[in-house]
Amino acid sequence: MPLDLNSDLGEGFGPWPMGDDAAMLDIVTSANIACGFHAGDPSIMRRTCELAVAKGVRIGAHVGYRDLAGFGRREITMNPAELRDEVLYQIGSLDAFAKAAGARVCYLKPHGALYHSAGRDHALAEAVLAALAEYDGELALLGPAGSQLEKAAVAAEVRFVGEGFADRAYTPAGTLAPRGLPGAVLDADAAVAQAMSIAVSGAAKIVDGSGTVPVQAASLCVHGDTPAAVEMARRIRAAFDEAGVPVAPFG
Amino acid sequence: MPLDLNSDLGEGFGPWPMGDDAAMLDIVTSANIACGFHAGDPSIMRRTCELAVAKGVRIGAHVGYRDLAGFGRREITMNPAELRDEVLYQIGSLDAFAKAAGARVCYLKPHGALYHSAGRDHALAEAVLAALAEYDGELALLGPAGSQLEKAAVAAEVRFVGEGFADRAYTPAGTLAPRGLPGAVLDADAAVAQAMSIAVSGAAKIVDGSGTVPVQAASLCVHGDTPAAVEMARRIRAAFDEAGVPVAPFG
Amino acid sequence: MPLDLNSDLGEGFGPWPMGDDAAMLDIVTSANIACGFHAGDPSIMRRTCELAVAKGVRIGAHVGYRDLAGFGRREITMNPAELRDEVLYQIGSLDAFAKAAGARVCYLKPHGALYHSAGRDHALAEAVLAALAEYDGELALLGPAGSQLEKAAVAAEVRFVGEGFADRAYTPAGTLAPRGLPGAVLDADAAVAQAMSIAVSGAAKIVDGSGTVPVQAASLCVHGDTPAAVEMARRIRAAFDEAGVPVAPFG
Amino acid sequence: MPLDLNSDLGEGFGPWPMGDDAAMLDIVTSANIACGFHAGDPSIMRRTCELAVAKGVRIGAHVGYRDLAGFGRREITMNPAELRDEVLYQIGSLDAFAKAAGARVCYLKPHGALYHSAGRDHALAEAVLAALAEYDGELALLGPAGSQLEKAAVAAEVRFVGEGFADRAYTPAGTLAPRGLPGAVLDADAAVAQAMSIAVSGAAKIVDGSGTVPVQAASLCVHGDTPAAVEMARRIRAAFDEAGVPVAPFG
Repeated sequence: MPLDLNSDLGEGFGPWPMGDDAAMLDIVTSANIACGFHAGDPSIMRRTCELAVAKGVRIGAHVGYRDLAGFGRREITMNPAELRDEVLYQIGSLDAFAKAAGARVCYLKPHGALYHSAGRDHALAEAVLAALAEYDGELALLGPAGSQLEKAAVAAEVRFVGEGFADRAYTPAGTLAPRGLPGAVLDADAAVAQAMSIAVSGAAKIVDGSGTVPVQAASLCVHGDTPAAVEMARRIRAAFDEAGVPVAPFG
Repeated sequence: MPLDLNSDLGEGFGPWPMGDDAAMLDIVTSANIACGFHAGDPSIMRRTCELAVAKGVRIGAHVGYRDLAGFGRREITMNPAELRDEVLYQIGSLDAFAKAAGARVCYLKPHGALYHSAGRDHALAEAVLAALAEYDGELALLGPAGSQLEKAAVAAEVRFVGEGFADRAYTPAGTLAPRGLPGAVLDADAAVAQAMSIAVSGAAKIVDGSGTVPVQAASLCVHGDTPAAVEMARRIRAAFDEAGVPVAPFG
Repeated sequence: MPLDLNSDLGEGFGPWPMGDDAAMLDIVTSANIACGFHAGDPSIMRRTCELAVAKGVRIGAHVGYRDLAGFGRREITMNPAELRDEVLYQIGSLDAFAKAAGARVCYLKPHGALYHSAGRDHALAEAVLAALAEYDGELALLGPAGSQLEKAAVAAEVRFVGEGFADRAYTPAGTLAPRGLPGAVLDADAAVAQAMSIAVSGAAKIVDGSGTVPVQAASLCVHGDTPAAVEMARRIRAAFDEAGVPVAPFG
Repeated sequence: MPLDLNSDLGEGFGPWPMGDDAAMLDIVTSANIACGFHAGDPSIMRRTCELAVAKGVRIGAHVGYRDLAGFGRREITMNPAELRDEVLYQIGSLDAFAKAAGARVCYLKPHGALYHSAGRDHALAEAVLAALAEYDGELALLGPAGSQLEKAAVAAEVRFVGEGFADRAYTPAGTLAPRGLPGAVLDADAAVAQAMSIAVSGAAKIVDGSGTVPVQAASLCVHGDTPAAVEMARRIRAAFDEAGVPVAPFG
């Protein structure tokens, strides 16, 4: 089965750019585009959607907490009904730009703190799915395999796409090792090797060095916020192409 | 021809309510719903859309400058491309809630300072129309008759709905008299009379008392932000019903 | 010892008012004024400071999470260093208006979710105190007695003022009973009685009806966000005045 | 008389950095620090103030319109009373961080669109001065020589510091040539030459090449938002040092 490559794009705001979106759109097959809550503004959303369409990359709504100052990395305790509304708002706004660029939003991916809170809390996960289903039940959900988000997607009969990370070590349980742990963040060589291992063998490194753990990933997340990250993503894509690992949009 | 009645709704934000939306939705036929830029938040947008649908009232996107503190009443000088993006974002976000409530956004009405700046400046008017056309060229535009917004709508082959005001006197040129002028704001009795005059004779009072001026209005704007405003709107609707003036959504 | 009466004021934003500040300033001796993060804007801050000074009421900085949409009632997980900066920013901004009105900020009171998070989490409490001490160690801290905020204030040698609530029942441990519990919110008569009981006997009702619990409050919080709340506050003040309970600013 | 060098600093926001503040603080004598309205957030304000104090650079409040998305470069039409409040809020918030770093705000400089609108409109200029005087009449005002800001400062008996630009050509009237005009923006060599000319002869280039015009500048503005800008600033400072042009804080 081909592997999808996704990346977080359109994460500038106003006068502040972030990352090299054009470079990443030559590498990935799915673009998680910020919707103005944790990053992105209407003009950046337009540009990023246009660029994605021009490069044949699929558009996903990268929905997050409304917290520009914290870049959506701080959890905001809110009730599920509020969260559903916040997510629906973001999908609709991005889809307007996708449509203007000649495409549509194809999937949803929670960002930052919401990725973790909705991955952990079933009521929040259901709220994300409720917004998705209200907007268009044909959208897919991209998120951490085995999480509450997957459970809620299955329950809602929404296509779920499990995501793996090239540059992060895993726990024996198959979840991401916290960044703070020694060895949790892989260097470029190790990340390329792990990308290949996830693609070919469905396995990733355990953080304590004790071996590997199965990681079912239909999509691999790569980053583009620094030149080094872009370079790592490029190497992963090149390694896949060279080894004949098919890279294509999920679904 | 029947007359449409429109009102600005969903203009609370977070903990702060504004106006009596439920009461107004028993009176009007078109609901201009704020999209989160000058007022409104995702939960209020949902509630207002649901209420409008429940009462059979049509939903319009009330798009404004991104300025909660100034309630969209302060002009923000921006280039037309930026404005187009800001407007498109708002249409998309509201349409998501309209859709969730079982309806769709049917028209656009610029709010506050944008109503005036885009009514006056052709490039800004074109930007509003460009956003409308990108989203859905079947949407109508509600705005001041004879303005740049009307010209841009005609040029874009978008249905334009000219709007009249019951509680404001007009200049001899048929534009609204500035609020500052003596006699510019009509009391309830005069407003009811002027509503009837616009509906029946297509004429409104000139502010200096020198007679009347033709006002081509397919929609009449009524307010609901104070109990007195709601009462005035109710009296206008009752006067129409009693006199057999047909009230119905435009177009 | 005289009892202080405090209330949350200046909690409008832009076009949206909240509560009857003028009425409350005839009742209380300390005004917790919002600083623009959970509510309040520069013009409201000026007006509220001027009104407080005109009525001889002391000004405190009511600092909260930066979350207008959630009115500061949603916790935002942030590290203590960030929180210290957010609090310091708010104190400085309010003090500018206090100064312009001829007074100064005299104390700090955390608002909403921050009241609870910093009351519970020692590192957050220390962050609040660090901001206070950096700005002016002579400021007092108003907060829940027995909380981490009190501990951090004592450790920082900052004057701490414990706060009681007239309209809320307490747990046997002397903390506020959660709003959800039956009997947790007192009606007006019970609130007046509890205010008197706290003032005279230092005791408040236990939510399960099992008796009373000691509540050491040098300040009593009363609300002004609804006409009924204002009326309750007025009755409490009148009961104090009639019974000869001295009401005066703390410290 | 020595010349002051000033630069706009602390202009990042949340996850988005801007410019190389540390490098610029080795070059300039006055730091215009953003106050959170057009750029800057509490943590960036703290860091920038600390860095300025560590390098012995004076702190000024760089006050702007509340418009992060537009970076304060879009005019927001507001009445002077609102503007005065917005400016006062910003001064107070920055001064809290200046104080925490062991210094104080010494001057005010309007940013972006406010620099131009208050330079042109006397009522807005008076509003800026009113805020300054309310906070501390000993603060200086940095702005365009010959503008309404200078007139309002003189009328308010506030020390005014006229500012020149190294990298911009001037009109025959001694004002900045609009960026759009050919020749309006000088390259690095020309900017170094013009800096020297302003410092030594009080004269700058006229945009049409027709000669020079007197420019009374007690402070020269240099930029640090790109590596090239930092390099230009460094060359200007080096040219001054080499030529024995004294560089020192104004006043």
